[in-house]
Amino acid sequence: MSDGPAGNSAYGHRPFKRSRSHFADRITADGRDGWPVEAGRYRLVVSRACPWASRALVARRLLGLEDALSLAVADPIQDDRSWRFTLDPGGRDPVLGISHLSEAYDRRERGYPGGVSVPAVVDVPSGRLVTNDYQRITLDLATEWTALHRPGAPDLYPRALRGEIDAVMAEVHEDVNNGVYRAGFASSQEEYEAACRGVFRRLEMLAERLAGQRYLVGDTITEADIRLFTTLVRFDAVYHGHFKCNRWKLAEDPVLWAYARDLYRTPGFGDTVDFDHVKRHYYQVHTGINPTRIVPLGPDPAGWTVPHHRERLGGRPFGDGTPPGPVPAGEEVPAGHRP
Amino acid sequence: MSDGPAGNSAYGHRPFKRSRSHFADRITADGRDGWPVEAGRYRLVVSRACPWASRALVARRLLGLEDALSLAVADPIQDDRSWRFTLDPGGRDPVLGISHLSEAYDRRERGYPGGVSVPAVVDVPSGRLVTNDYQRITLDLATEWTALHRPGAPDLYPRALRGEIDAVMAEVHEDVNNGVYRAGFASSQEEYEAACRGVFRRLEMLAERLAGQRYLVGDTITEADIRLFTTLVRFDAVYHGHFKCNRWKLAEDPVLWAYARDLYRTPGFGDTVDFDHVKRHYYQVHTGINPTRIVPLGPDPAGWTVPHHRERLGGRPFGDGTPPGPVPAGEEVPAGHRP
Repeated sequence: MSDGPAGNSAYGHRPFKRSRSHFADRITADGRDGWPVEAGRYRLVVSRACPWASRALVARRLLGLEDALSLAVADPIQDDRSWRFTLDPGGRDPVLGISHLSEAYDRRERGYPGGVSVPAVVDVPSGRLVTNDYQRITLDLATEWTALHRPGAPDLYPRALRGEIDAVMAEVHEDVNNGVYRAGFASSQEEYEAACRGVFRRLEMLAERLAGQRYLVGDTITEADIRLFTTLVRFDAVYHGHFKCNRWKLAEDPVLWAYARDLYRTPGFGDTVDFDHVKRHYYQVHTGINPTRIVPLGPDPAGWTVPHHRERLGGRPFGDGTPPGPVPAGEEVPAGHRP
Repeated sequence: MSDGPAGNSAYGHRPFKRSRSHFADRITADGRDGWPVEAGRYRLVVSRACPWASRALVARRLLGLEDALSLAVADPIQDDRSWRFTLDPGGRDPVLGISHLSEAYDRRERGYPGGVSVPAVVDVPSGRLVTNDYQRITLDLATEWTALHRPGAPDLYPRALRGEIDAVMAEVHEDVNNGVYRAGFASSQEEYEAACRGVFRRLEMLAERLAGQRYLVGDTITEADIRLFTTLVRFDAVYHGHFKCNRWKLAEDPVLWAYARDLYRTPGFGDTVDFDHVKRHYYQVHTGINPTRIVPLGPDPAGWTVPHHRERLGGRPFGDGTPPGPVPAGEEVPAGHRP
């Protein structure tokens, strides 16, 4: 998840620790937490800058949940009240009517002292935050929201493979998804080096795994691919320089680079990625790492559209299903923000 | 030239300006400035971190001046008195007997208010600085020190080509040698972008020029190649990330990368390069850009030794001369500091 300034202060003279999600209610088919799956009732709040929130963007697209679960996109630059809706007319989310995501947190728990993070799912009628549990939200979209999935939606968390998916995701989380943050926010050389070495050790293992198979688990896209993708797509743009994960660029590893491009070109992945939001967020918000707030011009994103040839490995991206349709009107990433 | 902390404060809320060398006496064959070329009389003070000083390291090797002009290597990390000899026993240069280069400046001009920079040439008998004119020192090594050149020394500044060499060097200086600094020390997004675009525009033009010819001017190594090399060899290690010149890595441009590797493998070039000094200097001294002072693990330097195949383009690296011999004992770059 991406915290506001409070969360960013985790960067300091102690090891970087990702805080646990505080609000872990689940939206389920049976409504056992008081939040039943229901079309039009909830609003997904994301920043397109944030890899944890972007998982939900991808899953929602792949599953065709755009009509059932509406979307609020926060400004990539938080202010002192954290994520805000300055991209919307009048600086307010048109559905929730709030200027800052923190207002939905306040309605859930007044005076909540923790950070405000995305992804967040908000109950539209009450304006209350339901969950900011970034590890759970996408799994529930895949397994609890099935009644609202589009025809042809893939099974992103197939029951028979969950053990393997969970194991891969746990390693990827520790070493890669969160590893880049531990490297970037390290407060000592030793801490940085341990994290950076862990990132590349794991990436090398993943490259070996992906040399002979198109996706991480089984022969279809699963949640494991979504979680690796949202880190890989940011790798050269921000983690390589800003977080000093610079042993090599993603573009220098033929296997992982082709794997990432394959997903990028798959409907539902690349069409959620806003490189402008990604770069401005990291380089302008983390002033402890980049005090000048200057946003680099590079890297050249043109490479993302170069043919990947991963079809040769076989695989059935959507299993027995089909690709999602086009991005709904109003949700397109601006042309200048993508390759 | 590389300044001490005073010079680094040029990074701030005004455009980065490289200060002019203050001490521009010349050491000449006829001694017209009072400093005649003389074997054993002068000491060259460098930091192996510094691209401007490294020009003199390369020229001295190529011309075989190691015995005639002795060498002092400063610690890559300056203290509040600037360049210092902490790498030497007792923290003093064994020939000059001083702990800081500033002492030689003081003996030349007491209370000199400017920055202390390398390269510097010091008169050993008097302990006085002779020149810190980084644009002139190497040209004089090539043209005034000829009586002391080794047999087979190349002509690094051939009279017939000086017009073209000067023109190329002027463009490379403005856009590349100094362009990376203007990008890295920019105090606004606009200033950074102009500098960064200039760096890559010039590099693209140079890549075009070097696609069909082995060296920048004529068919032999000249001073123009030395000056481009000392920036290129630092490009991926520090300018790409630390100075945000990240449109692409040198290793991603087939022509410039092969050109740089060709020179790197040429005796007198790569054997002067200490990647440890380079990385520690930039990442630990410029706290305005890298407040954590963490030094990245990457990039993997192994690529520097991959065959370049530039011999195909012909060229006679040393013209009618020969390559220099091995690095003198005591001047070798430690094994852990190179690929």
